[in-house]
Formats: sequence, structure tokens, C-alpha cells
Amino acid sequence: MEQTATLLVSCPDRKGLVAALAQLLYGHGANILDADQHTDPVAGQFFQRIKFDMSELHTDRRSLETAISEVAERFSMSWRIADGRHRCRTAIFVSKYDHCLYDLLLRQRARELSTDFPMIISNHEDLRPVAEQFGVPFHYLPITKQTKRAQEDAALDLLRANNVDLLVLARYMQILTDDFLNAYAGQVINIHHSFLPAFMGSKPYHRAFERGVKLIGATAHYATAELDEGPIIEQDVVRCSHRDSVQDLVRKGRDLEKVVLARAVRWHLDDRILVYDNKTVVFN
Amino acid sequence: MEQTATLLVSCPDRKGLVAALAQLLYGHGANILDADQHTDPVAGQFFQRIKFDMSELHTDRRSLETAISEVAERFSMSWRIADGRHRCRTAIFVSKYDHCLYDLLLRQRARELSTDFPMIISNHEDLRPVAEQFGVPFHYLPITKQTKRAQEDAALDLLRANNVDLLVLARYMQILTDDFLNAYAGQVINIHHSFLPAFMGSKPYHRAFERGVKLIGATAHYATAELDEGPIIEQDVVRCSHRDSVQDLVRKGRDLEKVVLARAVRWHLDDRILVYDNKTVVFN
Amino acid sequence: MEQTATLLVSCPDRKGLVAALAQLLYGHGANILDADQHTDPVAGQFFQRIKFDMSELHTDRRSLETAISEVAERFSMSWRIADGRHRCRTAIFVSKYDHCLYDLLLRQRARELSTDFPMIISNHEDLRPVAEQFGVPFHYLPITKQTKRAQEDAALDLLRANNVDLLVLARYMQILTDDFLNAYAGQVINIHHSFLPAFMGSKPYHRAFERGVKLIGATAHYATAELDEGPIIEQDVVRCSHRDSVQDLVRKGRDLEKVVLARAVRWHLDDRILVYDNKTVVFN
Amino acid sequence: MEQTATLLVSCPDRKGLVAALAQLLYGHGANILDADQHTDPVAGQFFQRIKFDMSELHTDRRSLETAISEVAERFSMSWRIADGRHRCRTAIFVSKYDHCLYDLLLRQRARELSTDFPMIISNHEDLRPVAEQFGVPFHYLPITKQTKRAQEDAALDLLRANNVDLLVLARYMQILTDDFLNAYAGQVINIHHSFLPAFMGSKPYHRAFERGVKLIGATAHYATAELDEGPIIEQDVVRCSHRDSVQDLVRKGRDLEKVVLARAVRWHLDDRILVYDNKTVVFN
Repeated sequence: MEQTATLLVSCPDRKGLVAALAQLLYGHGANILDADQHTDPVAGQFFQRIKFDMSELHTDRRSLETAISEVAERFSMSWRIADGRHRCRTAIFVSKYDHCLYDLLLRQRARELSTDFPMIISNHEDLRPVAEQFGVPFHYLPITKQTKRAQEDAALDLLRANNVDLLVLARYMQILTDDFLNAYAGQVINIHHSFLPAFMGSKPYHRAFERGVKLIGATAHYATAELDEGPIIEQDVVRCSHRDSVQDLVRKGRDLEKVVLARAVRWHLDDRILVYDNKTVVFN
Repeated sequence: MEQTATLLVSCPDRKGLVAALAQLLYGHGANILDADQHTDPVAGQFFQRIKFDMSELHTDRRSLETAISEVAERFSMSWRIADGRHRCRTAIFVSKYDHCLYDLLLRQRARELSTDFPMIISNHEDLRPVAEQFGVPFHYLPITKQTKRAQEDAALDLLRANNVDLLVLARYMQILTDDFLNAYAGQVINIHHSFLPAFMGSKPYHRAFERGVKLIGATAHYATAELDEGPIIEQDVVRCSHRDSVQDLVRKGRDLEKVVLARAVRWHLDDRILVYDNKTVVFN
Repeated sequence: MEQTATLLVSCPDRKGLVAALAQLLYGHGANILDADQHTDPVAGQFFQRIKFDMSELHTDRRSLETAISEVAERFSMSWRIADGRHRCRTAIFVSKYDHCLYDLLLRQRARELSTDFPMIISNHEDLRPVAEQFGVPFHYLPITKQTKRAQEDAALDLLRANNVDLLVLARYMQILTDDFLNAYAGQVINIHHSFLPAFMGSKPYHRAFERGVKLIGATAHYATAELDEGPIIEQDVVRCSHRDSVQDLVRKGRDLEKVVLARAVRWHLDDRILVYDNKTVVFN
Repeated sequence: MEQTATLLVSCPDRKGLVAALAQLLYGHGANILDADQHTDPVAGQFFQRIKFDMSELHTDRRSLETAISEVAERFSMSWRIADGRHRCRTAIFVSKYDHCLYDLLLRQRARELSTDFPMIISNHEDLRPVAEQFGVPFHYLPITKQTKRAQEDAALDLLRANNVDLLVLARYMQILTDDFLNAYAGQVINIHHSFLPAFMGSKPYHRAFERGVKLIGATAHYATAELDEGPIIEQDVVRCSHRDSVQDLVRKGRDLEKVVLARAVRWHLDDRILVYDNKTVVFN
């Protein structure tokens, strides 16, 4: 039985960091499978991702964590361990567009995404049949101006009751409040149907058409209180021309949105992303 | 001897346009080599590019133009004919960066760009040796706040005296006045070292680094009075990551700038570009 | 009500071709919406696609076709008219992989593909539930070495009984006989899970892994008797590295296969493809 | 003054590898700036690249190397240290095409390539003026069938006399003998003007045109005795269509060849490439 874990670390850069962690893991019988490291010389910040095998640990997991926390304190590290046996629980938020939803559900079924989907939450009923096709509970939580806060509270209750770790906004056409986002800081991935920072806000394909751009893009990012300004995880573009109508751009955009969102979600689930200074380090 | 010409036409869309032009050319003995057409259904505008062989013309070139102008009047067409025997004369404007300059000079020598370079104009002396290597006259026209207008006038004199048809701003680090640009409307190509409309203005690579984008881009456009807002001709991007320093972005950007600018210049020289509504139709 | 048609023409290049067709259409009251043309100077061959509006035809459709056939004879043209009101009927052939099947079904539902799917044919039962989700009749036609010919005959009966115009091999893991392919020449689109002509044949991802390539690709082509050698419609690639296992390559390949196949099918349905000399002209 | 070095290691995968090397470096006062690692689970092989700062070494460089060789023996490691102060000496081999040559010379001057060019070797006189422009000694070594071996010997003499570390075949239109290549195993980078393994051999653009491919590519690889079969370092593609003549493909190919070759050379110079099983691990 595979028994891997991933250690993610960030701290001010200092001599001996790599040796201290490698030595510690070796000393406990952990076998490093994959290690990736980055130093931002401008910010003077060190980042590391270490994936290791725990199947021949000399001690127990708890002793290992205690040892790590001691080293972490010495080097002022932020750190977390993701246990390979813990399967992340992801809630998908949708409105009426189905392309990202289908894409996520199919990828999960094809084992591209190692997560469970305990629920789909929507402010519309439209996509309930899709949820049912895939056997995922569908929660219809409508919104009016008056009920926005109550709707979010209902969503939070559902998320907590189901131990959800990750929220994916798969073209969820609602702006979440700061309070909601703060409750899941760094755990909400959004797909912005445009190349950020160009065309922030709504109707980017119409604006791209009007501006006559030759490429359109999509951006996956962590959602934060500043709308469309959260740390960017992944971006991609596709070529367009004068022959493309707004509808063509929308169609091309849909294909982009799917793959860009899927990449971001997969990297998050594989614990490949570290956030700092409103940017990401993606060890992929 | 090859004797081709290219007819570029735009007008409100109407029935019989294609037939009228095709019939006219056929009637005069012109053989259509390549025809490309586009109708913008939103703007209700028709665009066509017809490249034809004039070597077996029944009449002379002048009769042909008269006939075209008659049809053009009937359909309210804007039109122009580019004679394949006329070799476009291009002035390159530079400051201190040499990568786009070298690229253009080498492509011209490799016969990728069917143009002559009668002059290079610069506000700095730095690139004179490059001009000399390639045997292109180099004009040093320095600028101070006080002399900006006089410098532009000197440039205009040089351009006119040398019958220049096209101006390429190959990382020319000066903002041209409206008067100057109006004198060569639709004949000035600029390379913007960023993906427009993201990061308009200066230091886009620094801003891309700070924002943590995963792609950087470059945009070639016709320069107009609204800085960075002229019709976009071509754009492209390259992938970047947290491992790229600002210097890496600059290096990747240089490669992009070269190819994006070269494509735009080639399409212009091949009379493939039509402008309308601050956008381009590029028949490529 | 929209009433468009598309005329596709190829013939030896000659003067007056464009004028003759444009004049003919105009004379019958057809309004050209989009015209694209290509001359292969090496092969001396002319190709044109004309999309036109028939809603104000002075004559009937039959007179128009008679007139076209007369012009066609004069210029030795191959030609066909595709009526915009005729909705193409497409059969999807699958085995066990579901990604291309889902992709086609979802795109058709999103109105990206203007076709109907009267049937899915498979040599395995596995994908029946997908067919049922989308309400498409599923025909299970198993194959053994002994029954191959009989199975193909059964498929042909189904195709003919349902007036199928196009066959899409959406990762159908069977080699079709020449007789079968000849019955639907130019009407069978296959997705080859590799960049052709590299890695022809089976297990291309394993071979790409062994060879250490830095890009993997996919190719959509018309299926012909020469396996993997039919006219290429579209190709694309995705970047890979030493970090990608064979499984990663397969995953990346799946995403490619979907988009490359979808593009090819859409261009076919929009009558954008002409075939000659085992190559394609794609007017897109 | 910067004083960095890069340690490249490969060996059978085993527990404690990362810790042993990190501990050793730390113990000698070396500060790890960048570490990248890869384990090929199929081959059971471990690879690591460690860039470190030696400016505060407690011991001297020689003691460090002795310590590394002891660890290396324990783990059966292949290893080498590249001293950041050693500037690689690169010989460029050309024939008549100048685009890759210009590209390398310009990038070096722009400090993109940290190498010196002590010589350009050619079997033709054509590019001598380019060499002179950039002040690089040019050696004309013509070849006939009879003199091939003697020509290679003359080249080897020049390379050795100038302590050349790397040979770049920048469209050198000659096949090198096995003896020559063995003398510089893993130190000869070639640009193949095609996407390998498709279209191996000569005239790939003609064959791509005939086959009607929709993408053309270029491949940079280490030259080995098996022509076109050496370890691939980098590949890229560019889109083409029926509108591209062979000449257009050649032009597009030239742009590709330049960037693909430049990337491969830069990665080699930065000691980012490890070779095994006729494949490369590129830590970029």
C-alpha cells in the first residue's frame, strides 16, 4: 500500500535549510521521492515541496510532525503536510454553464483528479440533471439581493457538514462576500474567462471582439476579496482573427476555460501550489 | 517578368460586389491569383483583397484604374491598388535596443521582407555600427524637451525626401506627436512589448513579474494618437513561471517582440491588412 | 429564415474562373456571404469555397445547379453544393475510451456542431450508458476475426438505413477494410493519437516516452485504405518533459485528441475542407 | 564576487541520497541556491542538479570534491561539478545558412549565452564576413570525399588547441564521423530542421509540404553516431496551412530553428541537462 505525504515549506532564505529538512526526513526513515525548490532572490524567500514515502518510517507520523515543527520554528517556516491517504473533498459551484462542470466530473471519473465531489452547489436548477447523471448531490441555493448573506451561510453550513477542503467556482456567476472567502482562504479556485489583467470584469469576449485582439485567454486563480485580483495559478490563450464572431470567441473560450481550470485544480490537489505576495509558485 | 498587383477594397456590404470586381478584372484581362474576402455582419462591412496578374492585360493599367474607380463609386468603396513592381520604402526608428533592428535587417537580406531600408533614424548614436554593417544610412536626431517638435520636423523632411512609405518603430522609446502620426496615418507600425490591453504603458515585464502572470506577450499595432490603442495587427505570448526573473521575462520578451513585429511588417508589405473601427482584417 | 448554401469547387487553374462563378451566382440573385479561394501553383490547381444566401434567388435551386454544372463542364470543375438546410447525419464509432465521445456529444448539445447523431456504433458494450444519457441509439456490433466482414456489413446496413453522411471514428480501435472505407470515401474522420507521420501505428505514447520527445501530438485525418496515411485535416501538440510518465502523456494526449477531432469534425460539417493529392485545403 | 558551482548527479535511486548530498554541502559551508531532482520510476534512476554558493566555503574546493567523490562512490553516482567561474568555450560549425549563426552571435552579445566563441568552423567561405563583423576567428576547412577524415582531424586540432568545451552545429550540412563524435560525446548540439522522429533525413520541408501537415517543427539534440537519433533536448512547432509554399515553410522553419537551438545551447551552458538511455532530463 502506497503511503506518501507531501511537505510544503516557505520561509526566509537561509543556509542549511535543505540539509536540515533532508536530514530530518532521512533520520525518521522517510524516503524522498521528489523534491522541488525555489528561491525568490528579490523577496529573499525560500520555497520547497518534498514528496516522500512513509511506508518504512522508523517512528510514527506524530513524532515526524513534532520534529518538523521544531525545525520549522528554528527557520521561521510556514509549513504543512498533506497526507497522500487523505482524499481531498471538493465542492463545485455552478450557475448555468455546464462545460466546466462536465469537464471536472469526467476528469475525476477518468482518475485525472484525485478528489471526491461530495456536492454541487448552484443558484439555479439548470444543472441538476448533470449532477444526477454522475451521482453527485445537488444543492439548489437561489439568491436574491436580500438573501445573499443567508444563501452564503447555507452554503457554509453544507461545506462544513461535509468537510469540504476545496471550492471550485466552475463559472459560478456570483460574487462571493469577503467573509465567505476568508472562511476558505486559499481554498477557492475560480476560472476567469479572460486573460488577466486584460479585460477584467464581465463580458470579456465582447470587449476582446471590439478591441480586435488576436488572442483570447483564460485565467485560473485563487479567489480573494479583490475580485479578479487573486494569485494567478494558470493562464493560456488561443488564437483568433477577424473571422471570429463573438460567438466563436465564446466557443474557443469555453475550451480554454475547461483546460485551464482543470490544470489549476489538479495542481492544487497534488499540493503543488504555494502562495506568497499575491503570486503562486507552482511546482509542476 | 512577374507583374502582379493587389487590390484592397472595403465598403458597406451589398449584393453583387464580388461579381462586379471579378467581372471587371476578367474583362480587362487580369488573372486573379488569390482572392480573400470577409464580411463583418455586425458592422455590415465588406472587405476584399484580390491579388492579380497584369501581364496579359488587354488595356493599360490606367484604364483598369479608371474602371475600378467607377465600380468603387457605385458601391461607395474605399480602395487602393498596390503595384507588385513598386518596392515599399521603409524607415526604421530605433533608440538603444538592437534586437528588433537586427531582426528586420537580417530578414530583409534573407528576402523575407520585400522592402528597401533607405534609412534608420535614432535619437541615440548607439546603433550606428549596426546600420553601417548593413550599409543603411543612419540619421542621428537627438531629442530634448525643447527640440521634440524640431526633431520630428527633421525626421519628416528625411522621410519625404526619401519617399518613405512605411515607418517601423523597432523599440523607439519616444512618443510621437499627433501631427507626426497623422502625416503617416496607417503607415506606422509599433511593437508594444506586452500583451495589450494588459499592462499598457512602460515597464510591462516588471509589472508582469509583480502580478505573477504565467504568460507574457507582445503586440504589434498601428501607432495612432491614442498611445497603445491603435489597431492591433498581431499578438503572441510565451509561457513563464515563478522561476523567471524580470531579466528572464525581458529575454523571452525580446524573442517575442522580434517575431511579432516581423509578422506585422511582412503582412503590411504584402498588402494583407485592412483597418476599420480601430481593428484590423489581416488576410493571411 | 436563413437559407444559405456552400459551393465547393476544384479544377485546373484558368483565367476567368472567379468571375464566371461570381457572375453566375449574382445573375441568379444569390448573395455571396463568404468566399475563399486558393491556387496551388505547384499542382496548378484552383480551389474555391463560396457561401451564399439563397433567400432572394430569382430562379429556383434546380436552375441554379444546372447553370453551375454548365460552367463546371466548361472549366473541368469538380463541385458540390451543400445546402444549409440539410443537417448532416453523423455516426460515431467507439470502442472503450469515452473522452472523444463525451466531447462530441457535449459540443453538439452546445450547438458547436451542426449535426445530428442518429447512432453510436461500438464493438463493446462499455459506452452504452453514455449513449443513453444523451438519448442516442447505441448499436453493439462485436467483432471476432471470423465475423469482421459480417460486422462491417451490419454497420453498413445501419448507416444506409439511417442516411448517415459522416462517420467519426472517436478512438474506434478497429481497422476498417478497404471495401468499407471506399463505401464512404472522404466521409470518415479518424483521430490518430499521435503527431503524424511520427509514431505511426499503435502505442504512440509509449514510444514517445521511450524516445524522450518534448512534444506529443494528435492528428485528425480522413481514413483511407492506407492506414494512418489519409489526408491530414488538423494537428496539434502539447509540451511534455522528463517529469511526464506514460500515464501523464496519455492524459495530455486525451485532451489533445478531443480538441483536434472536434475541430476537424466542425470544419467538415461547415463544408470547409477540400481534398486533393492526399492533402487538404481547409478554408477556416 | 559571485562564486557559484553546479553539481550534476545521476545514480540508481536509493534512500538517503538527497540528505547525504545536502548534508555534505552544508557541512562544507556551501549554500544551496537551487536544487532540482527527478526520479524515473521506470528506470529506477535518480537525477539531481544542485546549484550552490561557494563564497563562504569552510574548506577549499578540493576538499569538497574529495568529499563528494566519497559519497558518490557509496551511492554509485555519476557526477560532475561545473564551476560558475569557468566560462564555457563554444565552437560554431556552419555551412552556408546564416540565420542560426547570427542568432547565436547576437544572443551571446546580449548576454543571453554565457559562453565565449573562440572560433567558427565552416566547409564554405560564405559566412566569413559575419564572423568578421563579430570579431570571431573563422576557419575555412573545405571537404571532399577524399579529404573528409583529414578535414575532421584539422578541426579536432583546432578544437583542442583552443580548449573548446562545446560544439554547436548551426545548420552544418555535413555528417560527422563516429570517431569525431566520440571525441566530444555529449558535447555536440545539432539542430534538426524538423520535428523528430517525423521526417528524418534531408529536405523535411519538402516532405512536410507533400504530406500536407498542419504543423512543422524543429528539434535540437545531442549528435551521436546514429544520425538524427541522439538524445532530444528541445522541440517546438509552428502552424502551417495549404497557403504555405515550401518557401514559406522554410522561412517559418528558420525562425523555429533559431529559437529551439538557442534554448538547447543555453540549457547546456547552464548545466541543466543530464543524459540517460538516449533521453534527456532538462532541469529548466
